[in-house]
Amino acid sequence: MGNNSLGNILKVTSFGESHGAAVGCIIEGMPAGLTINIAAMQEAVNLRKTNQYEFASARNEEDTIEIISGVFENKTLGTPICILIKNTDAKSADYTNIATTYRPNHADYTTHAKYGIRDYRGGGRSSIRITAPLVAAGALALQLIEHIYADVNIQSYVYQIGNASMSEEEKASYFTDTQIFGSEVRCPSAKTTENILTEIATVKNNGDTLGGCIQTTITNLPVGIGEPIFAKLQSALGAAMLSINTVKGFEYGEGFTASTKNGSQHNDEFAISNNTIHTKTNNSGGIQGGISNGMPIIFRTAFKPISSITKAQQTINENGDNIAIEIKGRHDVCAVPRAIPIVNAYTAIVLADLILQNKLSKI
Amino acid sequence: MGNNSLGNILKVTSFGESHGAAVGCIIEGMPAGLTINIAAMQEAVNLRKTNQYEFASARNEEDTIEIISGVFENKTLGTPICILIKNTDAKSADYTNIATTYRPNHADYTTHAKYGIRDYRGGGRSSIRITAPLVAAGALALQLIEHIYADVNIQSYVYQIGNASMSEEEKASYFTDTQIFGSEVRCPSAKTTENILTEIATVKNNGDTLGGCIQTTITNLPVGIGEPIFAKLQSALGAAMLSINTVKGFEYGEGFTASTKNGSQHNDEFAISNNTIHTKTNNSGGIQGGISNGMPIIFRTAFKPISSITKAQQTINENGDNIAIEIKGRHDVCAVPRAIPIVNAYTAIVLADLILQNKLSKI
Amino acid sequence: MGNNSLGNILKVTSFGESHGAAVGCIIEGMPAGLTINIAAMQEAVNLRKTNQYEFASARNEEDTIEIISGVFENKTLGTPICILIKNTDAKSADYTNIATTYRPNHADYTTHAKYGIRDYRGGGRSSIRITAPLVAAGALALQLIEHIYADVNIQSYVYQIGNASMSEEEKASYFTDTQIFGSEVRCPSAKTTENILTEIATVKNNGDTLGGCIQTTITNLPVGIGEPIFAKLQSALGAAMLSINTVKGFEYGEGFTASTKNGSQHNDEFAISNNTIHTKTNNSGGIQGGISNGMPIIFRTAFKPISSITKAQQTINENGDNIAIEIKGRHDVCAVPRAIPIVNAYTAIVLADLILQNKLSKI
Amino acid sequence: MGNNSLGNILKVTSFGESHGAAVGCIIEGMPAGLTINIAAMQEAVNLRKTNQYEFASARNEEDTIEIISGVFENKTLGTPICILIKNTDAKSADYTNIATTYRPNHADYTTHAKYGIRDYRGGGRSSIRITAPLVAAGALALQLIEHIYADVNIQSYVYQIGNASMSEEEKASYFTDTQIFGSEVRCPSAKTTENILTEIATVKNNGDTLGGCIQTTITNLPVGIGEPIFAKLQSALGAAMLSINTVKGFEYGEGFTASTKNGSQHNDEFAISNNTIHTKTNNSGGIQGGISNGMPIIFRTAFKPISSITKAQQTINENGDNIAIEIKGRHDVCAVPRAIPIVNAYTAIVLADLILQNKLSKI
Repeated sequence: MGNNSLGNILKVTSFGESHGAAVGCIIEGMPAGLTINIAAMQEAVNLRKTNQYEFASARNEEDTIEIISGVFENKTLGTPICILIKNTDAKSADYTNIATTYRPNHADYTTHAKYGIRDYRGGGRSSIRITAPLVAAGALALQLIEHIYADVNIQSYVYQIGNASMSEEEKASYFTDTQIFGSEVRCPSAKTTENILTEIATVKNNGDTLGGCIQTTITNLPVGIGEPIFAKLQSALGAAMLSINTVKGFEYGEGFTASTKNGSQHNDEFAISNNTIHTKTNNSGGIQGGISNGMPIIFRTAFKPISSITKAQQTINENGDNIAIEIKGRHDVCAVPRAIPIVNAYTAIVLADLILQNKLSKI
Repeated sequence: MGNNSLGNILKVTSFGESHGAAVGCIIEGMPAGLTINIAAMQEAVNLRKTNQYEFASARNEEDTIEIISGVFENKTLGTPICILIKNTDAKSADYTNIATTYRPNHADYTTHAKYGIRDYRGGGRSSIRITAPLVAAGALALQLIEHIYADVNIQSYVYQIGNASMSEEEKASYFTDTQIFGSEVRCPSAKTTENILTEIATVKNNGDTLGGCIQTTITNLPVGIGEPIFAKLQSALGAAMLSINTVKGFEYGEGFTASTKNGSQHNDEFAISNNTIHTKTNNSGGIQGGISNGMPIIFRTAFKPISSITKAQQTINENGDNIAIEIKGRHDVCAVPRAIPIVNAYTAIVLADLILQNKLSKI
Repeated sequence: MGNNSLGNILKVTSFGESHGAAVGCIIEGMPAGLTINIAAMQEAVNLRKTNQYEFASARNEEDTIEIISGVFENKTLGTPICILIKNTDAKSADYTNIATTYRPNHADYTTHAKYGIRDYRGGGRSSIRITAPLVAAGALALQLIEHIYADVNIQSYVYQIGNASMSEEEKASYFTDTQIFGSEVRCPSAKTTENILTEIATVKNNGDTLGGCIQTTITNLPVGIGEPIFAKLQSALGAAMLSINTVKGFEYGEGFTASTKNGSQHNDEFAISNNTIHTKTNNSGGIQGGISNGMPIIFRTAFKPISSITKAQQTINENGDNIAIEIKGRHDVCAVPRAIPIVNAYTAIVLADLILQNKLSKI
Repeated sequence: MGNNSLGNILKVTSFGESHGAAVGCIIEGMPAGLTINIAAMQEAVNLRKTNQYEFASARNEEDTIEIISGVFENKTLGTPICILIKNTDAKSADYTNIATTYRPNHADYTTHAKYGIRDYRGGGRSSIRITAPLVAAGALALQLIEHIYADVNIQSYVYQIGNASMSEEEKASYFTDTQIFGSEVRCPSAKTTENILTEIATVKNNGDTLGGCIQTTITNLPVGIGEPIFAKLQSALGAAMLSINTVKGFEYGEGFTASTKNGSQHNDEFAISNNTIHTKTNNSGGIQGGISNGMPIIFRTAFKPISSITKAQQTINENGDNIAIEIKGRHDVCAVPRAIPIVNAYTAIVLADLILQNKLSKI
């Protein structure tokens, strides 16, 4: 039956294939009366676009968002908001040679086996392109969050690509958006950016690709956000992140490292100062019992390398022949920097949804 | 509003607090006519019980499951199946001293802030005890899976506790249930078991606790399971795992390590032999595009150390006083081995749900 | 897959069979902190009980509600509230003679055909008995409504049984609960009550049964309740009423009669007096565009006669034989008066759910 | 939060306002591999269009459906199908004079009160126009039904408008589509058609409007469709019908009349002949216990007169002034004939959804 929606109260439902007429989404549950900033939505979408740096895909889409419904005189109506982005630069002909071939690590084989049919053009529905309208939806969700809690901030950056990584100490610092977006690879450390660019250059020459990791920090989120026991804040965030193409792992707070610690090392002691409850450390990553505790929410998401490599690979085709393949097309060497607006958008949708849900927690 | 359900078609809804009359769940969407094996359900619940090994909580519950509805002459009716487990050994008096204190890393503070009220007895709804009936539900979900696909197997084991860990090579091996459950800590490596027990003994003396990691392998799952784009197999499994108390991370296939690899290293080439499609490697962990590809599904879950330590900690109380606390009660030193039936149960519920959903993928 | 839940935010999920261990329900989405009145819940359940008047079923259940979870120190916790009612007077032996027979107009045949199995004892899940815990849930939902909008009142009465009916003029009057519950058949007109009792006496002698109609009025509901376009107030109420066993029709405002009117006759003109917006007439039944308009909500529900008659009927059995049947057991002659607490409970659940949803309509 | 979806597995989600860029919907849960007949979808939409007969609205829309996603090489992909219909003949200027006025019986006041904002142009989201893409979705749902059960037929006709009505005897007959669509008012009785046209002519002269009733018959639906206890076939159908603008009542089988009958009159005796189970009468309307019993499903839907009358009416405006209003614009005198494709479409969506759900009833 598929599951195309993120969120429950604020619910964003995706539709569209990479080379169909358009990709889009519907946002339900947005309260009426919110003045929307379409420019900010478009700007978020632009950040996701291809062709921004030399190692990214050469596909060039305008990606102009159209708001089809749900907004009147620049305000939300409380009705479903439909966002459309037309597919204008789809070169489907590039894909006819792989129409009957299952590319390694792509969704070609599993999609075909599951549905008995697949739109092979540009990966169809499994293309990352379908996230473009979701990024716009996320930007709108953020506007709702900011209306409710003015100071909430969602910030993500690349801390590792391939084997080039920031140290744990560096990651503990605070960074400005300028530092992050000043880096071609969205990494706030100048040194690591340099190392990453060196890695990318090498790998590009080899017709190969690279993965990486993103850290996300949500600041000023009030205590109380998250809906136990199956929409705990980390479950909802984790499910959203794991639904992004190429994501292989998710952890929050100390994450996997917490499993090596003693309770006395990992526990965050509570304290009150200036009438404010806080924890002395934040190994919990701002979540306890699935509910935000007022400290920064911190999580990390791991991305595998892009599957489309130009190096020759062994694979099979629909007839069941063992064949060799060399993937052509306009593909990224490393898409992790481009994932940042997606991570931020999904985070905003999850938060906006849980913030609305939390409004009904108490009488 | 809370979210108490796991699954969509096969939906398990949890209810109950640790020291209330009972904990329980309702299973909806179970097809009619399945002959159920109640003994196997009880056995799964027993595996989760406390007091099985010397370093576990001394709380001793019978945990006898009662099936209240949905079953007639030992067959499912296609109506909701209610499972109840009475709370018989609840010693609420143990908790009165912490009725107004927020224990570090527990859900006390966040629950109180969110709802304005909390059942402090035994952690109330944030107690791991509420998973007991869900384990029974998982065992029933497994029976449904086995009815549909006889050979599907779900197996989990502890590969790390504290700093004692199996090597990557060891983890690549196949293990029997006997090897796993022959180990007091559910670790199939005799050497690592020994190291773990040494770690536990040390930590116990210090009034401290330990976390760890579990690896889960699902074999013989057919291709096609998983519902893009927001109920991809990894999203659904990840969300379920992240909803388990004390889980801090989830990864599948190569997981976080994939982020350091090149595409040519990580990609799994397809091949056909004996008319069977398979991949030569399984770095994908059996999932591509969010859909099972017929290879074993492999994922890992990281657990933080138990928060209840007897060592003194600084914290606050409801009045906003900075105070010291030493947690009494019957708590585990390390609960990771006891999490195995929970991981397996949640996995079975997720799979059964997605298997039913997949029946509607094609005309 | 079944659908056992009424409501979306405030969601009541039913479970249980008539002659199983218990019937029950779970209430999710109830905000935390509501002081609950269990006595009022029990009282509502008692109103539904059999054996209250001489023409009702002789089955005698205590129907004591047990609250298993979600309440602590008499307040809601914001967690699922499980209500259980044990089945104590189930005489399943009464039903063995119809174990393989399909009773006319019962759910026997359709249930068996759909699920391949049925719990024939007391009608299993299609027994009206399963509404008992839902009546308790409805009484609790009403307590939530009254907490939010103190003056909301839900009132239902029987205006027709068989061919004995109140006139349209009579129905337009206001009645007290005393008038309604002072009537053995819950009809506030003394004259119609008398006529109804005469009808019932006649029919009972013939081993036959009777249907009837209930009118429900909700007063003091504020404007704004109802969620277009598929959870309009009338859709949600209608769906709930049509799910009650034996209901055959639902109308609101002028209902079917509206279809014979001109727009100028049916339309309700708006007016303002004393700064209060109201309509001069209420042919709309208090709902416009699926949303309450501040006037009384008025709807009518039609119930078919009870299917269990002692008169001989032709039917078939599971073997496909044409046979005759005379239904034994403790059945009602006319169950419409007993439906009043069910109608009120379902109304309260629908309203409470929509009232919570409406809290999220605007920023 | 709104509720914009019809169906659970096959789920159709509506979006769009009358005078926005477009109206549309998304169809989720459509199994992959269905060859679609777009012409049949367009034809259904055309039947709904205005300007088909002299007493209908003069608004003239092309209403061309565009399929944006979910279909590839004329087959469904198993992904969401987005249908768009652009708004091309919207004359919003017609509505500026009522921008601040609440038209009697319209959704103007309730929408404004609920959301604090409304798109007054053409009724915004409460316009019947938003059903156009849903009619296309219904036509596609019908194609799925026919793929699964070739002989299922859904037929609706007008049996009453104003005071002109077919007799009960006439309604019991079988009619061809030609008889229905040969009538300008979709009434298969020539005599009643004539009476209706006379009524309409009179009323039109008076600047007034008319309501009416539609009967729907579903034939050849197999036994087993309907999901107790809250998605019983009648509940799902009733909720869908009651969500159509202007619908005031719903009944199935004998409906309200059943409430005046004895059980022995109303009950449908079962019989077997030629190895086929059937009932001798069909007072149940083909549904027992909420599940189809193999007999024709019969239900009736009552529509109030169109609210937009040119006669002067008293009402209020946003400033709270008592004012008079004469509604201009291109409105229907009687829209009941145009409701037939909507009734059929919603019926098909409900049935397709329940048919898919029923596939999971048994192991």
